[in-house]
Amino acid sequence: MYSKNKHHHNAQEQLDNIVCGRNSVLELLKAGKRSVNKLMVSQTTRGTAITEIINLAKQKGIAIHNVPPEKLDRFSEHSQGIVAEVSPMEYIELKDLIIKAKQSPKPLLVILDGIEDPHNLGAIIRNCVAFGADGVIIPKWRAVGVNETVSKASAGAIEHIAISKVANINQAIDLLKENNFWIAGSEKSGQVLEEVTLPFPLAIIIGSEGFGIHSLTKKNCDFLISIQQRDTISSLNASCAAAVVLYEISKTRR
Amino acid sequence: MYSKNKHHHNAQEQLDNIVCGRNSVLELLKAGKRSVNKLMVSQTTRGTAITEIINLAKQKGIAIHNVPPEKLDRFSEHSQGIVAEVSPMEYIELKDLIIKAKQSPKPLLVILDGIEDPHNLGAIIRNCVAFGADGVIIPKWRAVGVNETVSKASAGAIEHIAISKVANINQAIDLLKENNFWIAGSEKSGQVLEEVTLPFPLAIIIGSEGFGIHSLTKKNCDFLISIQQRDTISSLNASCAAAVVLYEISKTRR
Repeated sequence: MYSKNKHHHNAQEQLDNIVCGRNSVLELLKAGKRSVNKLMVSQTTRGTAITEIINLAKQKGIAIHNVPPEKLDRFSEHSQGIVAEVSPMEYIELKDLIIKAKQSPKPLLVILDGIEDPHNLGAIIRNCVAFGADGVIIPKWRAVGVNETVSKASAGAIEHIAISKVANINQAIDLLKENNFWIAGSEKSGQVLEEVTLPFPLAIIIGSEGFGIHSLTKKNCDFLISIQQRDTISSLNASCAAAVVLYEISKTRR
Repeated sequence: MYSKNKHHHNAQEQLDNIVCGRNSVLELLKAGKRSVNKLMVSQTTRGTAITEIINLAKQKGIAIHNVPPEKLDRFSEHSQGIVAEVSPMEYIELKDLIIKAKQSPKPLLVILDGIEDPHNLGAIIRNCVAFGADGVIIPKWRAVGVNETVSKASAGAIEHIAISKVANINQAIDLLKENNFWIAGSEKSGQVLEEVTLPFPLAIIIGSEGFGIHSLTKKNCDFLISIQQRDTISSLNASCAAAVVLYEISKTRR
């Protein structure tokens, strides 16, 4: 089991063109954002979810291969009997993301300043989709990229949102400001979230799990906001904090 | 690496009396709820966080052992140079939890109906503490218990809240109702969270990652509430959903 696991970890680095698991594959097909080369289905797995996926794939003319379950285990221990081979995840250029976001009546972008845990990144992207953000900006360096673990943790949400990868968060903020975006950072020392009326177009910065928002980036914020909570524990999990912030902002965008 | 990992997984099942990592050990000492037999500190790790922990342990007269880092690796890959040997996590009897909660002006308990992922359980308990819930109720069977992974994912929050483990969630609900608690379930089909005025004493039910709240338990609810979101993705991650629900309820309890 552990040697297989090891193989999987190596494979994961190389295989950004693999999507595993029922939810993720279903959302991949529904979104139609990435082209699917083929679908591999375990010979031993059937059920309504798999049938739905197979029917959708047939409609779209995607090749379906029935394979022994061991073959899928090579890609992931959590394939749930289904693996899709896809074109790599395509990131959008920041300038294009800005144009796209500004088509929204109240543009909202989410900047992730160094999230390191792929499960957190996946959950945050899921929050972004659930609460209707227009896009996500992640740094190219010192942070996790959108790999298969992130895809799975997002329950397929990565297929439904535009993601931009930038070399420098502060330069990205400059470009956003030139395009009339207001910048708000989620930060312990900030004003209480529900007492601030945030203006749009808006970009919200969520800091990393351990260190929050980098100090230079913090200085670039127009607002700092915080979630009111009891004192005992210093902070929420990064994805839970993002959920609350995006939930509260989504109320003002309906 | 993987054989060590395997050893660790076996050990974890047996060793509910181990707390690893800086945050978790610090919160363990601060809370003073469990007695600490000894503290093991890596000979090669130092820093302000470790110094703070050592000083606190000295104040409390806890034995401190400087050990080679390999020794700590046996307990966890993520010990961060610090491991505490403690009395096992003590669960509180439900009847005692109810008495305790009712001392609060607006009693709030959180029932977790079958959370299976230890990271989710840890993050939810962290939410409960951050938003001031009076206690947590988890099922004895078919769900994850409060082990070291949960402790770590909770960033030490498990030390700051009373947790009750019950054989039957529906019997627990009956006892809560006899004690004048209202029962609200977080459920997609429910009324929009912020449009409902929830009464206290209140117990909120958070369903499992895959299946939500069991149907029998759902029937036992006085209210069903939901988080308003866009349609594309069917649900939030269980811990993110719990964060939003507890955040919104905490506003009415201030």
